[in-house]
Amino acid sequence: MRIKPTKEITRLIRPQVRKLAAYHVDETSVRIKLDAMENPFLMPIAVRREMAEVVRKTPINLYPDPSAKEVKKSIASFWKMKPEQMILGNGSDELIQAIILAFGGPVLVPVPTFAMYEITSRALAQSVVTVPLDDDFDLDADLVIRKAKERKAKVIFLACPNNPTGNRFSDTAIRKVLDNANAAVVIDEAYYSFSGKTWLLLLKKYPNMIVLRTLSKIGFAGLRIGVLTASQAIVDELNKIRLPYNINSLSQAIAITALTHKNVINRQISLLISERERLYNALSKLRNIMVYPSETNFIMFRTAADASDVHRKLKQAGILIKSLNKPGPLKNCLRVTIGTPEQNNEFLKRLKIILA
Amino acid sequence: MRIKPTKEITRLIRPQVRKLAAYHVDETSVRIKLDAMENPFLMPIAVRREMAEVVRKTPINLYPDPSAKEVKKSIASFWKMKPEQMILGNGSDELIQAIILAFGGPVLVPVPTFAMYEITSRALAQSVVTVPLDDDFDLDADLVIRKAKERKAKVIFLACPNNPTGNRFSDTAIRKVLDNANAAVVIDEAYYSFSGKTWLLLLKKYPNMIVLRTLSKIGFAGLRIGVLTASQAIVDELNKIRLPYNINSLSQAIAITALTHKNVINRQISLLISERERLYNALSKLRNIMVYPSETNFIMFRTAADASDVHRKLKQAGILIKSLNKPGPLKNCLRVTIGTPEQNNEFLKRLKIILA
Repeated sequence: MRIKPTKEITRLIRPQVRKLAAYHVDETSVRIKLDAMENPFLMPIAVRREMAEVVRKTPINLYPDPSAKEVKKSIASFWKMKPEQMILGNGSDELIQAIILAFGGPVLVPVPTFAMYEITSRALAQSVVTVPLDDDFDLDADLVIRKAKERKAKVIFLACPNNPTGNRFSDTAIRKVLDNANAAVVIDEAYYSFSGKTWLLLLKKYPNMIVLRTLSKIGFAGLRIGVLTASQAIVDELNKIRLPYNINSLSQAIAITALTHKNVINRQISLLISERERLYNALSKLRNIMVYPSETNFIMFRTAADASDVHRKLKQAGILIKSLNKPGPLKNCLRVTIGTPEQNNEFLKRLKIILA
Repeated sequence: MRIKPTKEITRLIRPQVRKLAAYHVDETSVRIKLDAMENPFLMPIAVRREMAEVVRKTPINLYPDPSAKEVKKSIASFWKMKPEQMILGNGSDELIQAIILAFGGPVLVPVPTFAMYEITSRALAQSVVTVPLDDDFDLDADLVIRKAKERKAKVIFLACPNNPTGNRFSDTAIRKVLDNANAAVVIDEAYYSFSGKTWLLLLKKYPNMIVLRTLSKIGFAGLRIGVLTASQAIVDELNKIRLPYNINSLSQAIAITALTHKNVINRQISLLISERERLYNALSKLRNIMVYPSETNFIMFRTAADASDVHRKLKQAGILIKSLNKPGPLKNCLRVTIGTPEQNNEFLKRLKIILA
């Protein structure tokens, strides 16, 4: 045996990993960033001062609470969950990873949907079964059930509302999948706050259901706190995979403080919903684009012209949105996150100029 | 197909996961906590005020910098690393997980060593090859190399200095493993600051070497920032597995601030080293215990009496240390983290009473 030269050491890496590409985040610095479903509003200055004071008192020399008891209680009370049936993740990303690690593959995902389900499955060397959504981007429950059975899928990810399309899958379709699939069914309610509809109340009825939420879309993307709730049996198994100190002390402390300001959070959400409706109506009036209804904090639309060109021109004007444009159901589709009223106006104004 | 009742849903969980036990953290609330290798010193009040101010200005509504550029630069400058050859993890735990996911198993670990290598491997359904340390808790390089070859180990974890024994493996033994094992060799330098010895300078010579560090032992366990550096080829592969926003905004910002206070950190480390020496000398004088030399911020010792009994009596007196006591090489062994001078005195005083 001999030392491997640099280029040879990677031969030891699992082949499934070697053939992956790293997840790409557009890090362009822009004036108006409407690509990542962030809440554009800061907390009021008084709340930020309160948070600063909390940090001053947090003993960062000590490990965080491994079971994150207090912050779980805060979230449980905010969203009416049971703290003992919750697991927090370093973002939902970590929870998605834990679910796939626990159940293994194949992993079934409708397409198009949130990219991380497939990316994470592949990074974990698990196979992925994709099932196309129907022409209205709704779930084809029969096809999902048939494919899940054929391929013996262990996990089905259903983002509801769905990203990047913005719609909620119909209740009957989801219920059919829950009733008939011999797999864990993950309902990812990342955009719950903007739809108000939840599957949480059916947790008791469906022991194979896992519900995900996140603090990222409601104002706290920087904290990286994803939330999972499921039957006690599933939670106990997933806790074996969770890294013991996965939520750092500052995120725990600041989330607790943030959630005491429920009124502020809810006002921001209401404003974003009304801005979404305003933007939807304005976009609907534009020629040469088709707008899709949304129950999230973003809107997907399709351009008659080349969407990549529209995307580039917006970027040149300092406005970053997300291009979804590639051959298939999202051909010439773009996704814009709801920003502040001023940001939305600027986006709208510039889009009109580009499309004119 | 039918809905599974709760107890049956877990049958879908991978069998390797089902048979695991969750990682147990002793969450007893005690007066003097010397079980977790935490730095007992807070930063001075002026620094904590500065940190509070940084948090007040951090836009937690936005996602963190996915490549953590600025904090990488700070750490790179603090420890003389190359920022482009670094990956940060949500604690070293996440980096250990990423390494195992990238290379797969079998994973070879000397025993006794840091428990998370084995726990994480098993949670990821990878097999573990254990190789006993010799009677001085040094590495038996020939045995490691032979076992690695026989079992086709993909990764070898070497904690150096080693936890919980406190010693560094001999340079020649490690070098022999690096020269001869056809595997990634991870040198975990979590306790580097307390030994001053590093393998970092040999990264160029050994493309199969991965070096881990952490901010946890030097005062910032609450931030959860682990550091990995290796050849560019390995870093590029591991980056495919890393979750895109794995270091939250507050930990990034606070670590940058903390590391500008290098003198404070170094003074705390020096004090802990001198306290370690003081405690070592004091323990060496006690009858009925055997003390092991340490290049870390903890000391392992073996009691003639039942160690679990000593541990329990300390706990009753409000002093929590770690019991390593189980049949095998750590029979009747205990591990005490170096605390403040006052904490160390209290521990020593109480131990003397218990052993008397």
